[in-house]
Amino acid sequence: MDFLEFVSSRQSDRAFDPSRPVEKEKLDRILECARLAPSACNSQPWKFIVVDDPDIKNNIADATANRILSINHFTKQAPVHIIIVEEQANISAGFGSWVKNKHFPHIDIGIAAAHICLAAHSEGLGSCILGWFNEKKIKDLLNIPSSKRPILDIVIGYSVQELRDKKRKKHEDVVTYNTYKK
Amino acid sequence: MDFLEFVSSRQSDRAFDPSRPVEKEKLDRILECARLAPSACNSQPWKFIVVDDPDIKNNIADATANRILSINHFTKQAPVHIIIVEEQANISAGFGSWVKNKHFPHIDIGIAAAHICLAAHSEGLGSCILGWFNEKKIKDLLNIPSSKRPILDIVIGYSVQELRDKKRKKHEDVVTYNTYKK
Repeated sequence: MDFLEFVSSRQSDRAFDPSRPVEKEKLDRILECARLAPSACNSQPWKFIVVDDPDIKNNIADATANRILSINHFTKQAPVHIIIVEEQANISAGFGSWVKNKHFPHIDIGIAAAHICLAAHSEGLGSCILGWFNEKKIKDLLNIPSSKRPILDIVIGYSVQELRDKKRKKHEDVVTYNTYKK
Repeated sequence: MDFLEFVSSRQSDRAFDPSRPVEKEKLDRILECARLAPSACNSQPWKFIVVDDPDIKNNIADATANRILSINHFTKQAPVHIIIVEEQANISAGFGSWVKNKHFPHIDIGIAAAHICLAAHSEGLGSCILGWFNEKKIKDLLNIPSSKRPILDIVIGYSVQELRDKKRKKHEDVVTYNTYKK
């Protein structure tokens, strides 16, 4: 498998075919890829809430859209949302976060999100990671306890977007050898 | 490509063949997969410092090991370390982090780290993500400005570890549908 070609052809999709559901077996494989993701001290500080009930899904989509900023209006088209809720880290990872002043659960959730998006891509599905949403609304809709936080919402569905060129910083601006360079 | 099988056969490797270097073209493809990773508002808040100079690499490895906690003693075996340095997010992602009280650059760096480890796996290489290290020593060794932080060190090399069974939380303990469950 050419992983670079695979990564190059993945993109954040913001237009989906609302009439085409995601097959259960595809979703199961995507969730298994998320479950198997590595994490600091194998802490696995996450729960994955799959939202596929049409009413709840539409309400979740409304909680991601923002009229003033004019963002995320496409989210209602996607038949599935996966909400990643941050769970308490285990003692080792919690101790490490505290000593090293780095919040490992956020890094871990990033890793799991990458697994989800790449797994979706391998199933011929499009996806988009959302970090901007009305957290309180989502907590209320999904009965998430007040002590927990939904960190990301990943929308998944059959994309109807053309593959576009990626806009990224140049290789020489992000990669150096054996020393930091501005 | 069976991405689930691919993810299942990746593991965090903690034993490497120190006599076997990583080919430049493999490393280039891994770095390209990192560069193409998605990030909040396409912020790309990262630099990747590849450490392959034997002396600097050994000093970096020493900065990851901890005698009291007895961790990371394998890191000197790996011929390459990739240090991910956090760079300032762009205005949109910075604004989002502030309003939503979520540090998006850490999530983004997790996504890039996943791309690196999966890309290494696709090249037949082993890897391990380290978050515990002496940050000041690494900054000094790599001339990282005092205002910047190295967040992760990913060691890469040819693994000499057997594939082991993954220990993960059960599917039913991390996946639910349309509602949070304890």
